[in-house]
Amino acid sequence: MSSQPPHPTVLIPGPIEFDDEVLQAMSTPSESHVGMPFVNIFGDTLTMLRRLFMTENPGSQPIVLSGSGTLGWDVVSANLVEPGDDVLVLHSGYFGDSFADCLATYGANPTQLKAPIGSRPSPEEIEKALSAKRYKMITVTHTDTSTGVLSDPREVAEIVRKVSPGTLVVVDGVCSVGCEEIRFDDWGLDVVLTASQKAIGAPAGLSIMMLSQRAVDTFKSRKVPPGSYFASLKNWLPIMQNYEAKKPSYFATPSPQLVRALNVSLKQILSRPLEERFEQHRVASRKVKDAVARLGLQQLAANPAHQANGMTAIWLPEGMTPADVLPHAAKLDVVFAGGLHREIATRYIRIGSMGVSVTNPKLGHIDKAIKALESGLMAAGYQIP
Amino acid sequence: MSSQPPHPTVLIPGPIEFDDEVLQAMSTPSESHVGMPFVNIFGDTLTMLRRLFMTENPGSQPIVLSGSGTLGWDVVSANLVEPGDDVLVLHSGYFGDSFADCLATYGANPTQLKAPIGSRPSPEEIEKALSAKRYKMITVTHTDTSTGVLSDPREVAEIVRKVSPGTLVVVDGVCSVGCEEIRFDDWGLDVVLTASQKAIGAPAGLSIMMLSQRAVDTFKSRKVPPGSYFASLKNWLPIMQNYEAKKPSYFATPSPQLVRALNVSLKQILSRPLEERFEQHRVASRKVKDAVARLGLQQLAANPAHQANGMTAIWLPEGMTPADVLPHAAKLDVVFAGGLHREIATRYIRIGSMGVSVTNPKLGHIDKAIKALESGLMAAGYQIP
Repeated sequence: MSSQPPHPTVLIPGPIEFDDEVLQAMSTPSESHVGMPFVNIFGDTLTMLRRLFMTENPGSQPIVLSGSGTLGWDVVSANLVEPGDDVLVLHSGYFGDSFADCLATYGANPTQLKAPIGSRPSPEEIEKALSAKRYKMITVTHTDTSTGVLSDPREVAEIVRKVSPGTLVVVDGVCSVGCEEIRFDDWGLDVVLTASQKAIGAPAGLSIMMLSQRAVDTFKSRKVPPGSYFASLKNWLPIMQNYEAKKPSYFATPSPQLVRALNVSLKQILSRPLEERFEQHRVASRKVKDAVARLGLQQLAANPAHQANGMTAIWLPEGMTPADVLPHAAKLDVVFAGGLHREIATRYIRIGSMGVSVTNPKLGHIDKAIKALESGLMAAGYQIP
Repeated sequence: MSSQPPHPTVLIPGPIEFDDEVLQAMSTPSESHVGMPFVNIFGDTLTMLRRLFMTENPGSQPIVLSGSGTLGWDVVSANLVEPGDDVLVLHSGYFGDSFADCLATYGANPTQLKAPIGSRPSPEEIEKALSAKRYKMITVTHTDTSTGVLSDPREVAEIVRKVSPGTLVVVDGVCSVGCEEIRFDDWGLDVVLTASQKAIGAPAGLSIMMLSQRAVDTFKSRKVPPGSYFASLKNWLPIMQNYEAKKPSYFATPSPQLVRALNVSLKQILSRPLEERFEQHRVASRKVKDAVARLGLQQLAANPAHQANGMTAIWLPEGMTPADVLPHAAKLDVVFAGGLHREIATRYIRIGSMGVSVTNPKLGHIDKAIKALESGLMAAGYQIP
């Protein structure tokens, strides 16, 4: 059925399993990064991102760079805030700390609104914080990959409009774009940043983002130059605009193979209604989460309304570590992830449910995951209650 | 013979044509970036880079990041110099200007020693500049891809040792690593940075570098934190050291497919003596340059000792532009590059001679290039003198 060689099924919260056609695009023979065949592909890819992010505003700016998802934080921190600017970072796990570190690196002044592990800041807390001080920007991790906590960017943007309309709304969508509903225009977002290797379903290596007209204007009215060179919008905006206009352009060499894989993946995603895709991810995620409950286990995200649809983070039974469970799952040819949140890394595991593993039920990946979880726990000595 | 679908032969100064096995590695199915199969591959890749750069000093530090070659400038500029530090930038084309821009972005104070187009700063000029002022760092573009001018990092390092031994020697080897001789230890270099898509022969998308113990120590004794997050050695040094020690580690998700392609390419390169590889590049380049002379044309790099072996930059006949010649070459299924140096971009073309196109003569790429150059010029109305 698949043209891929046999391999363990990767069900971690990214990188995820690939569709055959996406993976084949990675083996596209060499081509010039400024030749028209590639320029056309790159241009179409940028335009398709507008549809994925649900933005029709021509002032919105899609960006695709060679790099990890992390690079998106540098683009935000080096271009959209200036030294001394206050930023409110909504913390729902590890990635809030890291984004705050990145902001501070470029001279911004991040304040973290931290929730207990498995939770997220409440609307009341966010409103209070935004009312108490003028923030240039607020950041929210849509799905924190370390905890599986889902935040609500729409709600955050609504609070911002109510109490601090001048504040830029930045969504870290690394683990959400392609599996969680995101309506860039409708919700009034200013930045959504993501990466290629999660629910978008392409191999790792691309940093992907959408900027609003307001974000671009904020960049253009900077008083000091951007704090990065490789992540500078001064260097990249004209290049992205040229590629989308199908004009060859050069700042740094893009990766034709990765961009072609992304192109194929976006075509597949957009060939069906996005709402259907989101629903498929809700259903698959529900299936995993129901199994976790049946096994008598808890998720890090206790509140069902705060549980991501692209992944599930599961507390292990008392005294059990990922090293007890994951090798057993591996024997069933399934790769899960251990913990990532520093304070509790040895006490939980993570299961991804994104992309083809969800949209192509014939692959049977979700059922396989549930079986591997069950067997892994039992082999590690767990008694299902 | 090749498993690749028919496609025009890409003979630009990067990206270059791929070996079949390298390209196949790009279609490796998904795997965890912290699973042992990938950790072992990444670790071996870092260790092989030591051999490619000819360093046996255990204090040398190989680094591989998702990004374009340009990202290497950010790593240097954000980590190895501090705001206010003076840097001497040896300019032999477009890339000197860009590196200087990058250094200035992070607060360093670059002084460019500029040579006329097609030339490079002389040893006397370099010695004079280094004697006149204390520079924290000197940078040299080994091959400037915009001009095809080859510099001499060994000579530069010798001058530094003589007149300013405390100065770090940084080589931009984007267009030279893998095709020009570079002896990291013997020459006393502190940084050589490169990218995956040139003479190393892997697809674009990886920034690759080697740091000396002295460069690492310089970083460790910084007074202020690094000026970048994604390019921060504070974030990456432990990760690279863990990968090379075959220990899973995470800062930002690497690209398993690109790293596997790099791994295959390095294995191929190191399976034969490097000196043989450099000689093959000298011979192939000589063949192109002899043909250029036979056609009565000049190279941008007038002095034969200053001509790169991985590429050739050729002045077009008076009044002719790349747009007159390249489409005719394309009809013969060969892709050349236009000019890149801003002041003269419409007056010259560039031909790459790197990687499999050189090391696998059975492919016939160099002969094909010469024929396409000849036919392209004639079709554009040129009369061979």
